[in-house]
Amino acid sequence: METVSTNKSFGGTQGVYKHASATTGTEMTFSVFVPDHAEGAKLPVLWYLSGLTCTHANVTEKGEFRRACAEAGIIFIAPDTSPRGPDLQGNDVPDDAEGAYDFGLGAGFYVNATQAPFSAHYKMRDYIEKELPELVAQHFPVDMERQGISGHSMGGHGALTISLRNPGRFRSTSAFSPIVSPINCPWGHKALGGYLGADQAAWAEYDACALIDGGARLPDLLVDQGEGDNFLTEQLKTHLLREACDRAGQPATIRLQPGYDHSYYFISTFMADHIAWHAERLKG
Amino acid sequence: METVSTNKSFGGTQGVYKHASATTGTEMTFSVFVPDHAEGAKLPVLWYLSGLTCTHANVTEKGEFRRACAEAGIIFIAPDTSPRGPDLQGNDVPDDAEGAYDFGLGAGFYVNATQAPFSAHYKMRDYIEKELPELVAQHFPVDMERQGISGHSMGGHGALTISLRNPGRFRSTSAFSPIVSPINCPWGHKALGGYLGADQAAWAEYDACALIDGGARLPDLLVDQGEGDNFLTEQLKTHLLREACDRAGQPATIRLQPGYDHSYYFISTFMADHIAWHAERLKG
Repeated sequence: METVSTNKSFGGTQGVYKHASATTGTEMTFSVFVPDHAEGAKLPVLWYLSGLTCTHANVTEKGEFRRACAEAGIIFIAPDTSPRGPDLQGNDVPDDAEGAYDFGLGAGFYVNATQAPFSAHYKMRDYIEKELPELVAQHFPVDMERQGISGHSMGGHGALTISLRNPGRFRSTSAFSPIVSPINCPWGHKALGGYLGADQAAWAEYDACALIDGGARLPDLLVDQGEGDNFLTEQLKTHLLREACDRAGQPATIRLQPGYDHSYYFISTFMADHIAWHAERLKG
Repeated sequence: METVSTNKSFGGTQGVYKHASATTGTEMTFSVFVPDHAEGAKLPVLWYLSGLTCTHANVTEKGEFRRACAEAGIIFIAPDTSPRGPDLQGNDVPDDAEGAYDFGLGAGFYVNATQAPFSAHYKMRDYIEKELPELVAQHFPVDMERQGISGHSMGGHGALTISLRNPGRFRSTSAFSPIVSPINCPWGHKALGGYLGADQAAWAEYDACALIDGGARLPDLLVDQGEGDNFLTEQLKTHLLREACDRAGQPATIRLQPGYDHSYYFISTFMADHIAWHAERLKG
């Protein structure tokens, strides 16, 4: 692991790091904020998965999470959203993956791709569930018994599905404007079709609503969704998650926020709320 | 004035606007955050002037000012740092102004240039002191009797010098890592030499230390400066401001912050402190 940069911020250290990932076969970059803490202390961790087109940098620069994390003593980790590299920008991946904002680079969808050529590198599920946590546990003062997970849009989908598939692993799960059911939206059809193939049976483990319908449960979850979000009706379809939770008796706090859109102006507004919600569960 | 974008954030509206500036002869862009407020209310205003290479966007995205401004009921305005336009990218301005980060585009230094070709457009002093306040007063619910001013680096220089030259206009003045004495640093020599010519007599009204030495006074001022700032020794020279204030009996709170650098990771850390400091003076 190599340190790209560190900056003191809110009393702690905002770092950016990169490493050669065995999972994706590429160099991967991620950011970690470590609050000021007593020597030898292990801190709870909040994972934040980003949305389409994003890298680690978007939330790191615009997320406004550091004050709340510093106050709560929570480490905040922001991975990238896909493998990247010259050999993924044209050789291995059809043109579509290079040019489209919603497939390929910046759009890994937190799946393990099974379809060539994507199956060679697009293994973001294993990267987030296995490789990166191991790396982080080696290098940062994290208490892996106290993990929470959140994310935005495609990353909200990632947070919900990863948590639902790994019961007990995350004490707290939240999302900002998540894609709640890729099976039921154009972004999902394009991504899951491309990475996993046309057989939708393989898609269910990457669909939060399908996972809940299939019996997966969390202690609770928190979702904030802007009512002024341009993607709400066609892509995000928050009501499908509410309906799935209602059917299943899955406890869920799903809040529609009037006037807010899909941007970091929305996310930053409610970030401290989410961190407080995670802190209650991670530190309780 | 034309609206470029508006986003709901922290209960208020973060907008970006542009207009044809008579002062600079170019289109100018700026951002305004208006907190949620009672209909008909007029709110105090905090001006924030940005540093070298910046536009309105840097602080708007990374400054983390909205929560504190929303809570205090303060409008936050971020202008651009220079005129911009195709005719300033090669025709009117020597190559240096195009290529350098510290002169020309993004580096207006809040002066009225007197030297050709810059004198045609680089009138950032008049733009910030006259034209933009008039425009803002027409279009936003601002109480112009309650204005504060702040800024970062070159913008900290701008905030200090504009406030010192306009006694009584700003109830509160602060700066993050300001260039305190352009007369005494390479950035200042390059910029003031280029915009104002070699005669340093013309530079004094653009030098906070020289203004204080010349008798200009403020009720008080607040400065935060990172001790880990790479520009501290050669360019910023905070000690010169401390010495000028000591000589003059100018009240000043000048804080050195161990470990912090010149970036928005530093600025965002202390932004809420500054806003609270301004709020005390703007709302007291």
